[in-house]
Amino acid sequence: MTKSYKNELENLMRGTDEILVEADFEKKIASGKRLRIKAGFDPTAPDLHLGHMVLINKLKQFQDAGHHILFLIGDFTGMIGDPTGKSATRPPLTKEDVAENAKSYQLQIFKILDPEKTEIVFNSTWMSKFNAAELIQLAAKHTVARMLERDDFNKRYTGGKAIAIHEFLYPLIQGYDSVALKADVELGGTDQKFNLLVGRQLQEVYGQSPQVVMTMPILEGLDGVQKMSKSLGNYIGINEPANEMFGKIMSISDELMWRYFELLSFQSLDDIAAWRAQCEADEVNPKDIKVKLAVEIVERFHDKDQAVKAVLAFEARFKKGEIPDDMAEVHLTSEGPMPIANVLKESGLTSSTSEAYRMIKQNAVKLDGEKVTDKSHVVKQGVSIILQVGKRKFAKISTA
Amino acid sequence: MTKSYKNELENLMRGTDEILVEADFEKKIASGKRLRIKAGFDPTAPDLHLGHMVLINKLKQFQDAGHHILFLIGDFTGMIGDPTGKSATRPPLTKEDVAENAKSYQLQIFKILDPEKTEIVFNSTWMSKFNAAELIQLAAKHTVARMLERDDFNKRYTGGKAIAIHEFLYPLIQGYDSVALKADVELGGTDQKFNLLVGRQLQEVYGQSPQVVMTMPILEGLDGVQKMSKSLGNYIGINEPANEMFGKIMSISDELMWRYFELLSFQSLDDIAAWRAQCEADEVNPKDIKVKLAVEIVERFHDKDQAVKAVLAFEARFKKGEIPDDMAEVHLTSEGPMPIANVLKESGLTSSTSEAYRMIKQNAVKLDGEKVTDKSHVVKQGVSIILQVGKRKFAKISTA
Repeated sequence: MTKSYKNELENLMRGTDEILVEADFEKKIASGKRLRIKAGFDPTAPDLHLGHMVLINKLKQFQDAGHHILFLIGDFTGMIGDPTGKSATRPPLTKEDVAENAKSYQLQIFKILDPEKTEIVFNSTWMSKFNAAELIQLAAKHTVARMLERDDFNKRYTGGKAIAIHEFLYPLIQGYDSVALKADVELGGTDQKFNLLVGRQLQEVYGQSPQVVMTMPILEGLDGVQKMSKSLGNYIGINEPANEMFGKIMSISDELMWRYFELLSFQSLDDIAAWRAQCEADEVNPKDIKVKLAVEIVERFHDKDQAVKAVLAFEARFKKGEIPDDMAEVHLTSEGPMPIANVLKESGLTSSTSEAYRMIKQNAVKLDGEKVTDKSHVVKQGVSIILQVGKRKFAKISTA
Repeated sequence: MTKSYKNELENLMRGTDEILVEADFEKKIASGKRLRIKAGFDPTAPDLHLGHMVLINKLKQFQDAGHHILFLIGDFTGMIGDPTGKSATRPPLTKEDVAENAKSYQLQIFKILDPEKTEIVFNSTWMSKFNAAELIQLAAKHTVARMLERDDFNKRYTGGKAIAIHEFLYPLIQGYDSVALKADVELGGTDQKFNLLVGRQLQEVYGQSPQVVMTMPILEGLDGVQKMSKSLGNYIGINEPANEMFGKIMSISDELMWRYFELLSFQSLDDIAAWRAQCEADEVNPKDIKVKLAVEIVERFHDKDQAVKAVLAFEARFKKGEIPDDMAEVHLTSEGPMPIANVLKESGLTSSTSEAYRMIKQNAVKLDGEKVTDKSHVVKQGVSIILQVGKRKFAKISTA
């Protein structure tokens, strides 16, 4: 393998969870061919956050290396909805819904991917032409026992929870998409490994060279423990305002910062390793390195100008409020937006809501460095804020 | 229920293995409506024997009671062939094959059923219009766990033998046929019970009154032990010549005769019970009762004239050869037709093939009462014959 392929390979393998099988991948890269890189996405309305970017970034790396990106929207099954009729919350999508959601995807992913070099495909294109006999032929290519090896199926079967038979057809359809697209590589989350391997197997049955399966790890959310997800409120949406995005990144732990660097940054691994060594040797304040990460991410989803402004605003808030580097972190959960007095009480900054009201009246409460004057102010869900009471009491609060 | 429905019900329930559920069946019969009676058949070339007649006779009884017969040929899956591609012996049937096989079915079943009152239907009529999305909708109506309860699936799954996923779709398609046909009753062998119940369940899901499932027992072959089947050579084909058919029926044991009476004869159960009592009281020779059965069956598949001739020929053979009522029964299996000398030796009528040749040369060997003069005569597979050596040695021989 020439030096350049070796570099390309290293870069493409960065941060991956598993590559099945690596030897095949090396061979495909070394062939120098323009590879067809597939990644499948849900056809429902997308609201992407940094967790999704782990995969999109990998696509970007493939794209920059000259490969062909197939951004697949799995609309065929989405337009069927829930065929068991049990889930009222999964109505069938119309063609119009799908088109609208695809447009929303484009607005978001083209912040990263080059629209000129990204092919957006819909599996309804080939699946809606499939008749029952062809689907039977496809179903014959896989066995019940192998399907029941899939983790979630296995758990449900042994746990006595119903699996409707069409659920066995969905991984086959997803796998057939790889056949229809003649994919060389398919990317997916670690939780998609089984389905991606079905694609690999089906391609062999249909006489194609089997795709390489590349799984990406699941990104942890702001808490550093649970996976980043909208419903857990520990996410950074890619459409969030620059200041909010910046602040959220600055709020993560130092340990999580290295993880985000590996999976979300395009800085070289060598540079990242060097910074980490400097931090560990106390030669540098981790906060300054975190600013680099925050600037890179904000710049990617907004622009350089906004990134710079976000740094300045953030630094100003620190100086103005003399906000300490280290402060208590509190995560609050509620059914809806919370009155500021309750947030103060529940985070321990005041002993009661009446004390909270008093402190607000005395102009002693600051939210993200700004004085709170309205005692009926509410804090939204899914935000990360810094609250200050008096001169010395601080808390970093995230709400869900 | 009026007296006439009670009689109809008794007659229709005669010889059945199971009726699910009997209360539903009674209700449907008592409604006085013309019921839609479904029975499904394989689309491959039919060569029907008395084993198949258990079901066809039941259809005839429904037909005579004024109900509508739906003779379903399951050609949709037959035209797919073996989608796993593993079985070279199951090539896909063409439309022409199906049409030819249907014609062959008609030639055979219309010996029993009234062509004017029998609707022959093909499930490709509706299934070939199904698209993949519709098949997925259908697959969603049943669960993996319930499908794995089917006896053969369960054995294969627990025994580690592969079940291809499309095999789970076939019972659903068969069940959907009942929906498409709006069947009131479906008949099948006991081994079809699971599939027939799927039809019942699917009709409910599709908002129809669920069909009554009626299973018929599997008829034993000439040996009285194994099920009647062509491959076991213990069958009576409905296209066999009158004399052969007559002789085979006369060759069955007395015990098996009562079973055949119940399942194949249209004689009243009262008459049959009376004859059985007479035989058991030694008031009548069972052979004379067996003649009644043989005459009824031969008359059904040939005509009265041929049935009478078959009786006469049979009686003549007895008198001519002084063939005893009771004689040894021997079942021989071979790879192909057997030379007469080997048959004589293996059945114990001669001690060796050379003794067999000597006896033939001495004109001492008779086959079905006729002298054997050709020592190279061969006995075909799947026949039942009476061999005689000298005055006193007899054997009833069936070959397979």
